[in-house]
This record gives sequence, structure tokens and C-alpha cells, in this order.
Amino acid sequence: MRLISDSCILRLKIKNKPGMLAKVTAAIGYVKGDIGSISIVSVSRDYVVRDVSVFIKNEAHLEKIVKALKQLEEKGIAQLIKIYDEVRRVHEQGKITLQNKLDIKTFTDLSHVYTPGVAKICRAIVEDPSMASDYTIISTSVAIVTDGSAVLGLGNIGPLAAMPVMEGKSMLFKKFAGINAFPLLINSQDADEIVKAVKLVAPTYGGINLEDIASPRCFEIEERLSEELDIPVFHDDQHGTAVVVLAGLINALKVVQKDITGIKVLINGTGAAGTAIAGLLIEAGAADIVMCDRAGAIYRGRDEHMDDHKHRLAEITNKERIKGHLSKALKDRDVFIGVSVGGALKKEMVRRMAPDPVIFALANPIPEILPEELEGVARVMATGRSDYTNQINNVLCFPGVFKGALSIQAKKINTAMKLAAAEAIAGMIDEEHLSEDYIIPSVFHPGVAEVVAENVIRAAIKTGVAPI
Amino acid sequence: MRLISDSCILRLKIKNKPGMLAKVTAAIGYVKGDIGSISIVSVSRDYVVRDVSVFIKNEAHLEKIVKALKQLEEKGIAQLIKIYDEVRRVHEQGKITLQNKLDIKTFTDLSHVYTPGVAKICRAIVEDPSMASDYTIISTSVAIVTDGSAVLGLGNIGPLAAMPVMEGKSMLFKKFAGINAFPLLINSQDADEIVKAVKLVAPTYGGINLEDIASPRCFEIEERLSEELDIPVFHDDQHGTAVVVLAGLINALKVVQKDITGIKVLINGTGAAGTAIAGLLIEAGAADIVMCDRAGAIYRGRDEHMDDHKHRLAEITNKERIKGHLSKALKDRDVFIGVSVGGALKKEMVRRMAPDPVIFALANPIPEILPEELEGVARVMATGRSDYTNQINNVLCFPGVFKGALSIQAKKINTAMKLAAAEAIAGMIDEEHLSEDYIIPSVFHPGVAEVVAENVIRAAIKTGVAPI
Repeated sequence: MRLISDSCILRLKIKNKPGMLAKVTAAIGYVKGDIGSISIVSVSRDYVVRDVSVFIKNEAHLEKIVKALKQLEEKGIAQLIKIYDEVRRVHEQGKITLQNKLDIKTFTDLSHVYTPGVAKICRAIVEDPSMASDYTIISTSVAIVTDGSAVLGLGNIGPLAAMPVMEGKSMLFKKFAGINAFPLLINSQDADEIVKAVKLVAPTYGGINLEDIASPRCFEIEERLSEELDIPVFHDDQHGTAVVVLAGLINALKVVQKDITGIKVLINGTGAAGTAIAGLLIEAGAADIVMCDRAGAIYRGRDEHMDDHKHRLAEITNKERIKGHLSKALKDRDVFIGVSVGGALKKEMVRRMAPDPVIFALANPIPEILPEELEGVARVMATGRSDYTNQINNVLCFPGVFKGALSIQAKKINTAMKLAAAEAIAGMIDEEHLSEDYIIPSVFHPGVAEVVAENVIRAAIKTGVAPI
Repeated sequence: MRLISDSCILRLKIKNKPGMLAKVTAAIGYVKGDIGSISIVSVSRDYVVRDVSVFIKNEAHLEKIVKALKQLEEKGIAQLIKIYDEVRRVHEQGKITLQNKLDIKTFTDLSHVYTPGVAKICRAIVEDPSMASDYTIISTSVAIVTDGSAVLGLGNIGPLAAMPVMEGKSMLFKKFAGINAFPLLINSQDADEIVKAVKLVAPTYGGINLEDIASPRCFEIEERLSEELDIPVFHDDQHGTAVVVLAGLINALKVVQKDITGIKVLINGTGAAGTAIAGLLIEAGAADIVMCDRAGAIYRGRDEHMDDHKHRLAEITNKERIKGHLSKALKDRDVFIGVSVGGALKKEMVRRMAPDPVIFALANPIPEILPEELEGVARVMATGRSDYTNQINNVLCFPGVFKGALSIQAKKINTAMKLAAAEAIAGMIDEEHLSEDYIIPSVFHPGVAEVVAENVIRAAIKTGVAPI
């Protein structure tokens, strides 16, 4: 597995003589160091200083590489001057910062932004609370709420260790939608307490983005907060994923020329993402969905490895009550959507699917199956990764959804708004560019958040969740 | 009362003929519009366009001024083109904003700041939670917590209408100490719920600044949070005020050549500020303090208008059990500290104080007595206002105190740290510059926060509240 992020930069002073760089790269390669870019820092008559970017597996691997380079030093070939850790560097002291929109240089400035001038603004809000959206940052602010119970692939690492992810998420909100997204770490993993905490601080924000909260707790928390607050509440791991999956599926089905109402779907994984995907696909018209967990297909009447949540899933999916493990349940299905674990899908299973199979292998960082294994077998293949084509990435959804919802002070993010967001994302690719390898825009595709926001606004107004 | 902040700018197109501006200023002055600066926007042969800054009392007053100018328009003298509201302008869409410390331009950037790279940082924090201070913004972050129950002189306006003040406070934290201070509005005015909410979100921040929470609730909240959290908790309305008052008093006593242990002090006001001032002055050595409320001196055994809080004050002050209203209680006292209401102090009362009386009239925006009334009567006079000399302003204290406490991850802000902060502020003015009119540095005095932070750090280490 090549994880771009586990890279470091080795600054090496290499003898200025032909063949020396080859010895360096060979030494690194010999201990399985995967070399990325190599750049020149400085050149003198005797030496060339180069920055060699190396992908490493872990600290022990790095030590091996350093040891190999030591041997080169003893031979007078190259000297390791410094090791830069790129990832650590960008996280130092955190990745976001508060800024003042104007400088305070004089007593007059001070009297405008603080006492006594600010009192006038406070009084205006007392008289008309809607003024808060004109004179505070509330209407452009979102809380990114986590209890750290299901962080990336790391599991329950607690709120503190989840903070770097929340800051990263905040950066994405800012970068793609100009939204001020404030991390909010909750020191409890009890649904009641999380709901309580968020409700108590809710006036600070224009919306709530729930993040990395474990299933099934996340369902209750989102449901209760949506009901009890009059600002949008959105659990991105559920709905963000579902929206982008639907967007990708809309386009994938155009490529394979199938209609969503007629397809047979299998969703592998019954957590937050799988559940939300099933719900949204049903709303979008998909009538035949089977969900699998480790014990196989979920069906009404299954006894083993069930809980309240899975019983509810059994009610809304798998009308034919298909039983058995993934490999059996997947037979003759048109679409596989994996939100489970790396390696869960095998080539042979895909071979037994209906013609033109569509595979979304979204486990991160290791997908249920690697695209190269399915060349010539799957018709359309998507993953969650940026180093393959067709990346299903929530960044396509949540910035635009919140941008739209906040701009009209929508009280909810309802199904119509989610469907509208999926349509907007799918619509970024016009028919002539659409292909097996291009069913979903890149996260850097210009204007995605704006188009999503517009579509979301229209749907919100149409369904009456915005005050306008 | 001239409130700089209740100013607007009138853009006027005035006939270009000598004497016309005088007619305009006369018209505004006639309806008691107080003119500030006048600037030229453009000049033509026939007209001069000028921006006239006018201090107004309220909207009705502005309407009067507009009406007066209408009459000039009818006479062909001047035309009102536009009214700018300076204060509103600076508050539009809020005064603070989140920024990304680095731009996300490529998939590599994305993989460094978010998945998969961020996982490495999360794992580092799981292994060693102290790493959170190296790789997140937590250690440079503070929550500004309010329930909006005692906002400026506006009273209980609730959390939403308090937001502009919290944003202003956040600006001051950033401007003077580089701290990320996040407003946190609490949707409850119940002490239990406020404590609960803050405890639940506390992992997000390196410190808690309580703001504009009514007395006596504020005492309980601060006490409980200080005890139950291991990050600094500071109620600025109490301790910020107390620290700056002590700083001013240290220097005022140098001017009048009295020793703090021998002075008789009267504190008018038993709210958050008055209580904290009494406590800190006692810690600084003041042995003879009498506190007054509207019913007069607080003494042990007083029955009327008492509550638990005042009973406690009666225990630690007024050993001589002085009784009676302010005018009587103030007799022969050396120092008056007012944290009460405008106009509470009369010149005749000051005349009956001990020689060289020191008057801190800190009610805002209207002090207990205006400095001009006490010319030749008080020896040293301070207010909370920037338009008089000797401004007692919390901005001198809280940025430096938090800067110091956060930088060493102090678990508390204890009395020693507060005394150290006061000494630092007082010490900004050297003996040769010290005078009746200069006992306290300006909030813009360079380096105050840094010097306060250094002193606070020393005191924290000495008293063992920092992990070092």
C-alpha cells in the first residue's frame, strides 16, 4: 500500500560523480523504500545536495533506510543531512487559526468593535434576533462535533486524538465553501450527553456537522438533534457519503445504460455509511437492495448477529429475503457498494454478478478490492482513493450542502436537499465526457460547492424548510 | 454623554461658497448633534462633498438631524447624500473568521492535512496525548463562554445578542496575545447546565474564559469549573478587573506615598468585579476594606438586603463593622473603587475622604463621577473610559494572563499568578514617568501582554500549577 502521507523527505549530500545517485536510489530501494520525487537543493564541485522523498511503512522501516544510507556514508558516497516529515510539519500547532477581519489600531477602532460601540449591535439583536445573521459570524459558522468514537479507520480513539481530523475537516469547509467550521470535541460517548452538550452550545452556530461518531449511536444523536434544534444537523459519515455514492451511481448507470428503479444493489456494511446509502438509494428509486454484514445478508427473520438497527434495515431492504454470505448474495446483482473492510470482495464474486457490474469499493485506505484486480471484469469501478479514477469523496458534498443550507437559514437538511445535491454533483459531468473512468468530478473540479449549494437552496425552498 | 461609537457619517453635498459649511454645522449643532471629524470627499466648482462624522444619542436624534438638514436642502445650501453607520459596518457578517494555515491545492496537500496522512498524527496523540499541544490548535485556544446574563451595561440580553461582544473579545485575544478565542454561547442560565456544557466541550480548548455571566451564579460556575477541569478557568469580569484595579492602585499609592497595608478602601458594588477586587486587594495586603451596596456598608450582622454571597463578603471585610450609606462609610477612607452605577459618587463625599484621595470610578459607560467634577478634589482619578487619563481596562490583563498560562499548560490561574500580572502591568510605568495622570499603561502600550505572560509563567512555576 502506498500512502502518500507516510512520506518523509531525506536531504542527502551526494558525491558529485556520475553513478552516485543510482547507488543512493539502489540502497533505498534495496530496503524497500519507495522513492517519490527527487529535487536538487544545491550543487558544488564535489557534492550535490538533493531532497529525496521516500514513502515509508513505519518508523522501523525508516530506521532501516537510515541504516542503509549510513553504509553509503562510510563509503564516502552520500551523507544523510536531515529527515523532514512532511505530514507532521503541516500539522504543527494546528492547521487552522482565527483571524480578525479588521485590525484594532486606535481607541476609535476599539470603541467600534468592543465597548461601547458593540452595545448598539447587541441592542439591535435584542430587538430583532434575525439581525444576528447580519452582524455576527453565526450564520456562516458550523460546529464539527465528534466524540472520537469512529475516527477514520482508527476506531474509537477518543475526542482529543480526533482533533487533527476535525481541523482538517474545518479546512475543507473553508477551502470549498468559505464556511467557518469550529471543531467541538465532546468529552463523552453517551448519546444523551452528546445531545445535551450540542443543544446547550447550539446558539453559537448556524449548523451542526456530526463527525466520526460510531454507529448505531450516531443515528439517535442525529435524529434527536435534528428534531430538537432549528438549525441544520448533518452527519457527514452517513449522508455525505450517501449523496456522493448516489451521484456516482447516477452517472455509472448512465454508462451501463441501466435504470435505477430496475437495478439490484448489494451494500456491504451496515454502519453509518451503509445505512444512509441504503436510505438515500431507496428515496432515489432503487427498489432492490440487499445489505450484508460479516454474517451475510440481512433479512427479515434473521436471528443471529442482529440488533435493533439491523432489524430496521431488514424491514426496508431485501424483500426477497435473500440469505447467505456476500459471495452468494452478490450473485446476479448489478451494483456492489462496499463500505466495509479492505479485501472483502473477490474477483470471482464479481464474475458472478449481472453483466456490466458496477463496483464501488469504498473502504479506506484499503478498498474491498483494488481496481487493478477487476480490470476487464468490472464495467465501472470507484474507490475512496485519490490515486485511482472515480474517487467517491465527501468533500464533493458537505461544503455545498452547508453553503446552501446556511445561506437560506434552512432549518433542516431533508431528503429532497440530499437528492438535489447528488443530482448537482452528477450533473457536473456532461454526457459527452462521461465514461467508465469518469463518473464523478474531482474534488478540485471548479464550482462544485456552488452548484450543489444552488440545487440545495432550490430543494429547500420547494420543500418549505427555509423561512423564505 | 459622548459615546464615540454611536457615531454615523453624513455624506453631504454642500454649496461651494464661503460660509456654507458653517450653516451646516450650525444646523447640526442646533439639534444637539455633536460633530467629530469633517473630511472632504470631492470638490467641484459648485459643490464640496464632505463626510461629517456626528455623534448621535439614538435613532430619534438622527432623524432630528436629518430633518434639520432637509431644511438646508430646501434652501439649496446642502444635500444629504448618504448616511454611513461606522459601527454597524465593522460588525457586518461578524468580526472574526477562521483561516486555513496552508492552502489545499493538490491531492498531496489533501492527503497531508486530511486522510490518509492525518491518521499518523491521530495515532501519535493516541500514544502520547501531550502531542495534542504540538499538532493541534488546542494549546493556543480558549473558549469565551457566556450565557448572556450580564452583558456590558445591557443586563440579561441572552446569549445570542451577546455574540457581538464575544467576537469583540475574541479579537482582543488575537490582537494582543495571538490566542484563538472561540465564542461559545450557552443556551441556559442555569449554573449546573453551564458547568455541564463547558465540561463536555472542554477537550477542545486550552483554557476557559467566562464572560458576562451574572453574579452570584458566576462565582459558583467558576469555582466548580476550576475544580473539575485541569485547564485554566478565568472569569474576566471578576479577575481581569481585579488585576487591573490592583495594578492601578499599586501605582496610585506610589503617587500618594501610601502603603497598601495601611490604606482604608471603600468598594462600591458587590457584584462580580467588586467581590474579586476585594479578594485580590486582601491578598495584596490591604487590611481595611469596606464594601457598599445600594443599602450601604456590608457588615457582619446586617439583616436587610443580604444573601449568601454578601454574608461571605461581610466575613472578610469591614472588621470595624462600619454601618450606613456610602456617603457616611466613605468618610476618612483613602481609596474609593466604584464598580456600581453612573453618578453614584458626589463631590462632597470625596471632600470628606482622607487626604490625597484615590478615586477609581469604573462604572461604564457613565462613571460614578466624572473626572472634571473632581479636579482639585481627588488626587488620583481613574475610570474605565479611553477618553480620560488612567483607563482601567481588562485588555491589559486577560491576553497576557492566558498567554502565560497556555504557554506552560498551567492547570489553574491562581492568586499568585493574578498578583504577578498586576505587578507586571504596574511595572510597565517606571518611577520617573509615574504621575497622577499616568498610573496605568494604555492598552496599546507595546509589550504589555508579553511582560504579563512572563510574570504569570514565573508565578505559575513557583506555585507548582504548571507541569514543569
